[in-house]
Amino acid sequence: MLKPGDTIGILGGGQLARMIAMAAAPLGLKAHVFAPKGDNPAFEVSGHFTEANYDDFPALSAFSEAVSVITYEFENVPAETAAFLDSRKPVLPNPKALETTQDRLVEKTFIRSLGLSCPDFIAVNSLEDLKAAVSSLGTPSILKTRRFGYDGKGQARIADEASISSAWDDIGHAPAILEAYVPFSREISVVAARSQSGDVKAFEPCENEHRHHILSRTLLPAAITPRTGWAAIEAAERIGAALAYVGVFAVEFFVVGSGDDETLLVNEIAPRVHNSGHWTIDGAETSQFEQHVRAIAGWPLGSTKRRGKIEMINLIGDDVENWPDLVAEPGLKLHLYGKREARPGRKMGHATRVTPEKDT
Amino acid sequence: MLKPGDTIGILGGGQLARMIAMAAAPLGLKAHVFAPKGDNPAFEVSGHFTEANYDDFPALSAFSEAVSVITYEFENVPAETAAFLDSRKPVLPNPKALETTQDRLVEKTFIRSLGLSCPDFIAVNSLEDLKAAVSSLGTPSILKTRRFGYDGKGQARIADEASISSAWDDIGHAPAILEAYVPFSREISVVAARSQSGDVKAFEPCENEHRHHILSRTLLPAAITPRTGWAAIEAAERIGAALAYVGVFAVEFFVVGSGDDETLLVNEIAPRVHNSGHWTIDGAETSQFEQHVRAIAGWPLGSTKRRGKIEMINLIGDDVENWPDLVAEPGLKLHLYGKREARPGRKMGHATRVTPEKDT
Repeated sequence: MLKPGDTIGILGGGQLARMIAMAAAPLGLKAHVFAPKGDNPAFEVSGHFTEANYDDFPALSAFSEAVSVITYEFENVPAETAAFLDSRKPVLPNPKALETTQDRLVEKTFIRSLGLSCPDFIAVNSLEDLKAAVSSLGTPSILKTRRFGYDGKGQARIADEASISSAWDDIGHAPAILEAYVPFSREISVVAARSQSGDVKAFEPCENEHRHHILSRTLLPAAITPRTGWAAIEAAERIGAALAYVGVFAVEFFVVGSGDDETLLVNEIAPRVHNSGHWTIDGAETSQFEQHVRAIAGWPLGSTKRRGKIEMINLIGDDVENWPDLVAEPGLKLHLYGKREARPGRKMGHATRVTPEKDT
Repeated sequence: MLKPGDTIGILGGGQLARMIAMAAAPLGLKAHVFAPKGDNPAFEVSGHFTEANYDDFPALSAFSEAVSVITYEFENVPAETAAFLDSRKPVLPNPKALETTQDRLVEKTFIRSLGLSCPDFIAVNSLEDLKAAVSSLGTPSILKTRRFGYDGKGQARIADEASISSAWDDIGHAPAILEAYVPFSREISVVAARSQSGDVKAFEPCENEHRHHILSRTLLPAAITPRTGWAAIEAAERIGAALAYVGVFAVEFFVVGSGDDETLLVNEIAPRVHNSGHWTIDGAETSQFEQHVRAIAGWPLGSTKRRGKIEMINLIGDDVENWPDLVAEPGLKLHLYGKREARPGRKMGHATRVTPEKDT
């Protein structure tokens, strides 16, 4: 168990690392951020940082000496890096969670092994595999690289048989899966934390809207039945337990049908704090970032109680130019990430509106 | 007007500077902390800091080059330091506010000049002055140094005529005032912000309990009449306007009498974020720290709406040893300041309980 004054090591220097570091401070914990050279806004809020590559083992060794526990902001931590660090200091969530979620084929096989549903999928290693998979799953369907996919990267939609070979080119002939298209009615996610003692606390499921494959808005309460909400939380609990997970994770679901016919399909698991949990900073009694810090510190989890009706809006690319209007909106909570350049598709910040429910 | 990416300079490296820096980050503003060598917990949450004395003018000059605006966490910034910096970059709140509040005699004269009441006082420059003052104001009365007093430092209570000369020794024969003892029923404060356009937003008056002259608990709502609450806010607005103040400040009051007979006496003005405003981090839509940053950045002030019934408890000295119980209390928000050593009387952190009022 960590005590105040101890230091948490964080791999990655982006907005998630930044918000983890900011959540550690009020708990009396220091943050040490490790990230390769680049635009690392997490360095701005931390008195300790290392600028080095993830395969710089002397730097990783010194970093491990300086911290009590190590966590990460992204699922693509190289396996060698995770193993090297884990032999020196506890890496939480554990490297097994990384291994399971870094590869879509492994991830989906794991999800099914827990008795949970996900869209139909077939492994694809060649153009011939892909043609056979399309015959089997039909069109439209989605070709996704097994590794390094996020925010729609490494994905190609196959609208008809004529687009098979261009899709295969689009993903660079990488090992992949073909996934059946799911005519979902909405997308939801559960952000949950699992403590070192195995206690799980989930935030209420939230509804997510995407634009160009990037999260655009998160809304609570989600327009789902209570039964669907409980099923989503139960699925997250089952996933957390099977991974012997410690920390915050997110499970994204497709909701198919509506009312009494609503069913859930797991879309993906993120072994980290998640964009769809950003609303918790202002809208819940404990933020997902504080919850993550509590979990990896070996402390009890905090209350996940929601403070009202929520709308979280991502500020993507040029959206951030709108900051003067956003800071002027009464009650709106602005979170800018301190990135130097607003490139298209880049997450520059978010804004949250919390409306007390007695007022609605 | 500052824009995201700009840097705020902060004089002082303690918990107030730390919480200002932490409030600047989500607004996309960087913080650069300037403080003498020592235990500076604000350095832990800031990517930029200068460790130098307040009379190190080359260091101050470099600091002023690195920032867009300069603020401070304590009222005892040396006048020369403030003037040197103010000639290079805007110092907010302005040095006049410092000058007025650094000296109890100047401060109380200023308060009276606005038509506001404060306890009777007499300037004391010698033992003879003190004897005469005690004859005039009676006992008990309080001898206070004109400068450098906080948390009961530089004060001596005069219970009777026999204790005059030991009180004079206690404060080191420094220029002082003798203040009449006020049989107050409670102490309240107003934490307010004034923007660059002269807009004032006050948080609701809070009730403060002290132990050994140090703030122990802050409670909201305060047990005062609505009329007293409005009078306190009106007094704060008058003070802010007269100082052409920009930023957050606090006005502490004694409440004398009760019910329809309640009257207010101004105790002191703090030209900075204030311990009695710490509840706003968790209990108001905008924290006093964010409000201060908004004001000095030239941005509009945020909503001061309160989220529920509030109890803020200071963790003084060894109180902080109780952290395992505090982190385990559902819904309690813990704020540790990251100080290295828990000396008696030292503010080590605070904890806030917010109870939604519909539940009470």
